[in-house]
Amino acid sequence: MFTERIRDLAHVGSVELFTPVPARSAAFFVDQLGMSEAGHRGDSVYLHAWDDYERFTVKLTGRDTAGIGRTYLRAASPQALLRRVAAVETAGLGQRWVSDELGLGMVYLCRDPDGHDLGLYWDTERYRPTGGDRPALKNQAAAFPGRGANVRRLDHVNYLAADVAGCSAFLAGELGARPTEQIVLDSGEVAGIWYTISDKSYDLVYTNDRTGTPGRLHHIAFATDTRDDILRAADVCLDAGIHIETGPHKHAIQQTFFLYVWEPGGNRIELCNAGARLLLAPDHEMLSWTQAERAKGQAWGLKTIETFHTHGTPPAQ
Amino acid sequence: MFTERIRDLAHVGSVELFTPVPARSAAFFVDQLGMSEAGHRGDSVYLHAWDDYERFTVKLTGRDTAGIGRTYLRAASPQALLRRVAAVETAGLGQRWVSDELGLGMVYLCRDPDGHDLGLYWDTERYRPTGGDRPALKNQAAAFPGRGANVRRLDHVNYLAADVAGCSAFLAGELGARPTEQIVLDSGEVAGIWYTISDKSYDLVYTNDRTGTPGRLHHIAFATDTRDDILRAADVCLDAGIHIETGPHKHAIQQTFFLYVWEPGGNRIELCNAGARLLLAPDHEMLSWTQAERAKGQAWGLKTIETFHTHGTPPAQ
Amino acid sequence: MFTERIRDLAHVGSVELFTPVPARSAAFFVDQLGMSEAGHRGDSVYLHAWDDYERFTVKLTGRDTAGIGRTYLRAASPQALLRRVAAVETAGLGQRWVSDELGLGMVYLCRDPDGHDLGLYWDTERYRPTGGDRPALKNQAAAFPGRGANVRRLDHVNYLAADVAGCSAFLAGELGARPTEQIVLDSGEVAGIWYTISDKSYDLVYTNDRTGTPGRLHHIAFATDTRDDILRAADVCLDAGIHIETGPHKHAIQQTFFLYVWEPGGNRIELCNAGARLLLAPDHEMLSWTQAERAKGQAWGLKTIETFHTHGTPPAQ
Amino acid sequence: MFTERIRDLAHVGSVELFTPVPARSAAFFVDQLGMSEAGHRGDSVYLHAWDDYERFTVKLTGRDTAGIGRTYLRAASPQALLRRVAAVETAGLGQRWVSDELGLGMVYLCRDPDGHDLGLYWDTERYRPTGGDRPALKNQAAAFPGRGANVRRLDHVNYLAADVAGCSAFLAGELGARPTEQIVLDSGEVAGIWYTISDKSYDLVYTNDRTGTPGRLHHIAFATDTRDDILRAADVCLDAGIHIETGPHKHAIQQTFFLYVWEPGGNRIELCNAGARLLLAPDHEMLSWTQAERAKGQAWGLKTIETFHTHGTPPAQ
Repeated sequence: MFTERIRDLAHVGSVELFTPVPARSAAFFVDQLGMSEAGHRGDSVYLHAWDDYERFTVKLTGRDTAGIGRTYLRAASPQALLRRVAAVETAGLGQRWVSDELGLGMVYLCRDPDGHDLGLYWDTERYRPTGGDRPALKNQAAAFPGRGANVRRLDHVNYLAADVAGCSAFLAGELGARPTEQIVLDSGEVAGIWYTISDKSYDLVYTNDRTGTPGRLHHIAFATDTRDDILRAADVCLDAGIHIETGPHKHAIQQTFFLYVWEPGGNRIELCNAGARLLLAPDHEMLSWTQAERAKGQAWGLKTIETFHTHGTPPAQ
Repeated sequence: MFTERIRDLAHVGSVELFTPVPARSAAFFVDQLGMSEAGHRGDSVYLHAWDDYERFTVKLTGRDTAGIGRTYLRAASPQALLRRVAAVETAGLGQRWVSDELGLGMVYLCRDPDGHDLGLYWDTERYRPTGGDRPALKNQAAAFPGRGANVRRLDHVNYLAADVAGCSAFLAGELGARPTEQIVLDSGEVAGIWYTISDKSYDLVYTNDRTGTPGRLHHIAFATDTRDDILRAADVCLDAGIHIETGPHKHAIQQTFFLYVWEPGGNRIELCNAGARLLLAPDHEMLSWTQAERAKGQAWGLKTIETFHTHGTPPAQ
Repeated sequence: MFTERIRDLAHVGSVELFTPVPARSAAFFVDQLGMSEAGHRGDSVYLHAWDDYERFTVKLTGRDTAGIGRTYLRAASPQALLRRVAAVETAGLGQRWVSDELGLGMVYLCRDPDGHDLGLYWDTERYRPTGGDRPALKNQAAAFPGRGANVRRLDHVNYLAADVAGCSAFLAGELGARPTEQIVLDSGEVAGIWYTISDKSYDLVYTNDRTGTPGRLHHIAFATDTRDDILRAADVCLDAGIHIETGPHKHAIQQTFFLYVWEPGGNRIELCNAGARLLLAPDHEMLSWTQAERAKGQAWGLKTIETFHTHGTPPAQ
Repeated sequence: MFTERIRDLAHVGSVELFTPVPARSAAFFVDQLGMSEAGHRGDSVYLHAWDDYERFTVKLTGRDTAGIGRTYLRAASPQALLRRVAAVETAGLGQRWVSDELGLGMVYLCRDPDGHDLGLYWDTERYRPTGGDRPALKNQAAAFPGRGANVRRLDHVNYLAADVAGCSAFLAGELGARPTEQIVLDSGEVAGIWYTISDKSYDLVYTNDRTGTPGRLHHIAFATDTRDDILRAADVCLDAGIHIETGPHKHAIQQTFFLYVWEPGGNRIELCNAGARLLLAPDHEMLSWTQAERAKGQAWGLKTIETFHTHGTPPAQ
């Protein structure tokens, strides 16, 4: 018997990052990634990826150490939002309704079992291009930047979690996400699990934090239109002195073409391209990778770089 | 008040094409598009695109004239299938349940008001790669062909319709699809309308048939991972003597990078690439293009070729 | 008996363009093409393409009407320079030695029979990147811009000529260039002829000027590393309001992937990519295209746009 | 005082490889690289890259162990050939004239000081496409394959040498090649040196053989039109079970975008793309990389894989 899935979350909306060097971080998002500034508020600057229909894509907030603030998840409807809030409250993981964010209306705050902050919402403001970034074609959010990586939209968020199992149960249960691929170690432990809330093959990912520190970030990822944008971004980062951690290469898991860099504040940023890959089967069965398969490295043989297992933000104590 | 949309159709599954030259048509799909043969039955040959999780992508059937047979649409669940069947029956447009197709279980047949055959289904067989096309990575359906256009999957079907309004009402009403963009002539007539049933910005399209002939095909489209695959396909088609109708170029509407060719049987085939473009907003408002906007041609200025308005299959009498 | 060819010219060095709107033209070269400003002098601004080893690539000079000034051609050695100067003087087409150009030493001025100004030189200054555009790798001239078309270097100059035969004789005879492809009309007239002085399949081109006006420019072209840079440039030009004349598409003649735009001053600019195509055969025989072959349009079927035969700079009276 | 350079060698023509598994090696060149068979003779099969104007590109000869046979270098003219033969003979490194190769006329055999066989020639047969690979455009040698890596032409040969200094002196002195980049270790030893005989930035390379074995091969390289061809080739090799040694990535030295694989016989094959990079300056000064610079790895940070320093063909005893 197939259990019908109601899709209550539409997509990842935006994310807040903390950085000890906000001006340098903002310059990275603008100059190397091709985003544009979309507003300021207090210690925060808002950045917009050119085809994001919403008011902002990343909120960059000055803070002592790098790390991740709220991840905003847009519901598929007001009704869906209320269903998810009820589920979260029943599970005792809810916090409260707020209305404190640029471009967003009522937001319901909650936390996954690892302590990552989430904000569920429906009401959102459309991005309004001004003179400089008004597009020639009205079916795109802003003019094409033609700068750096030209990231089109936020693609996914990959959390480090001390409690992958708990977070996983929360995401599947309370939020209705579907797991699509996972790594299962010989010990039986899940080292990483990929969840989708859309037709993309993943939107939210939990990776086991070997330091046992809860609530950290592994990386956030932006989608580019082409793999060439990513190759070009590598040159741009090289010349700008941005730390390239690994890539470009292609993941075996999920098959994403990737480049990982560290923005000046220390947060890991992925540039990713999935080609025309979508996960359209409504009855897709989660696929498991063994420890041995994982040890083979990436799709074309690149060994996983050591920092990929150790670096997260904020730094572990 | 936002009306909640339950997504009952998951995606376009496969399509049947008619061709007067089946062997030559099959060779085109294999050699120029990069598909592989996945079976035979009577006058039909089945073709599979390398990352299609289902048994086949295109069914090619010998027939006096080119044209389109059934379009198979996969439901999001067994329950969703029954809901849609009930809606279609209530509208008096249903036909009957059959179980006559390779790799599919029970299929409910119906017709849009223009007479295009549709088959709604849930039960489907997974594609099983055999020795030759077994992929190295288990999260793809078959080995990457490295041949011609390397089409990854079927992307959309664009029908010609004598009754765009009627078809449109059927698609939105009985099947629950969402319109995303349209062309509205000065006369008020809708010359074309794009519908999505997924996170892609369109899956099914109706274009006004100027000849007034019902039930014809404008084109079917296949997605490639890169724009480079499409540029390369142009060279491949040039050397193989395949008629290139127009492109490569980029559509203003929906912004798809495209190439249109005619397969040897006469059916128009599009190779398309959307980059990282998705339509994630659950409350996207349909965008209308005027006759004047349409007259500007494609995104980068290419004028629409005349045959694009006249050629369809089967040929009009 | 094969006549040995001594290669006396090394490559096209740089070119001067006239524009009635110098500031807007300069902005185009910087913002849409990805070049950088490399100096000013009087009414001229100098622009540098990121991997040009010389001081500048384009000199942009304010003038009432658009058009082309000097084309600078670098000799293969001081000895080769003197050989070519002697040949030009013997033919009675020489002018004089000057030393008046930024970054260049002694330059010998001459004119082709149609009146296009040429400057032959050996001494040249290396481009010195300053803080902002210092590359991370020392084997490139400047940092990769990651902006617009990212043009790497000047590729070729295509003149309009009232006297194609005379110019052709001059280029082959006095300058030692080799013709590689040509269009021969049914009348026997050469409508266009492509010359190489390097391993590229062409560097200098003469196209018949149907207006009979001598000394005009058809276009200058810049090479990009990828075809994707050109596709992206099309979007960038679209959003910037730059006139896209035709393309992207692929030429049948010489097989160049191209995009033609008009810079704000009116001069036609081509962005071009030849892939890995080189003309390495020292005994390559010039290939002729007939009028009928030419009428077929470009490689993938695009018809040649009418303005391609009429627009030149300065405008014909 | 600048010493004028007469370019006596036009380009690398073709190369012979030895393989213990000729049928499997041939299948690799055809299926994964996109070449076609162009003849057989005794234990040898000839392979042709689609835009090579000559009769063949690679000669594959069955032999107990892998390795390299003759490298054929085409002279720029009959006169140039005789000049080089005289120089080689004077140096006491010449062997004899032969006329024993498919598609080639008189060939002068010689050996570099390390014992690599070279054949200098002028007379050569043009490649004649037959029905199946006749191109639509007459300015290319054969139809575009649309298969695998679609390699366009042979790009360069990289020898391992026990005596880099001797080989280097021979190449610069007797053959007139120009060094463009080199690695100089702290000990003063040249670990690798890149030579050009064309406008490309390198055609022939000597790398120090740490085993001290003379006459071995590091790799031969084929040029593709795009970086995308190389990314796609990685997928093709992955699915075909071809060993991917390292890449895709970009070299710091010479900046080539690369992928290294081992053909079934064991010879290392590079797929390379230089974008629009050419070395046009006739007075280019060789650029030296230090041991410390080399230790930084490739352009985007990839560490050089250990086998890159150890694997060569034939295997060292």
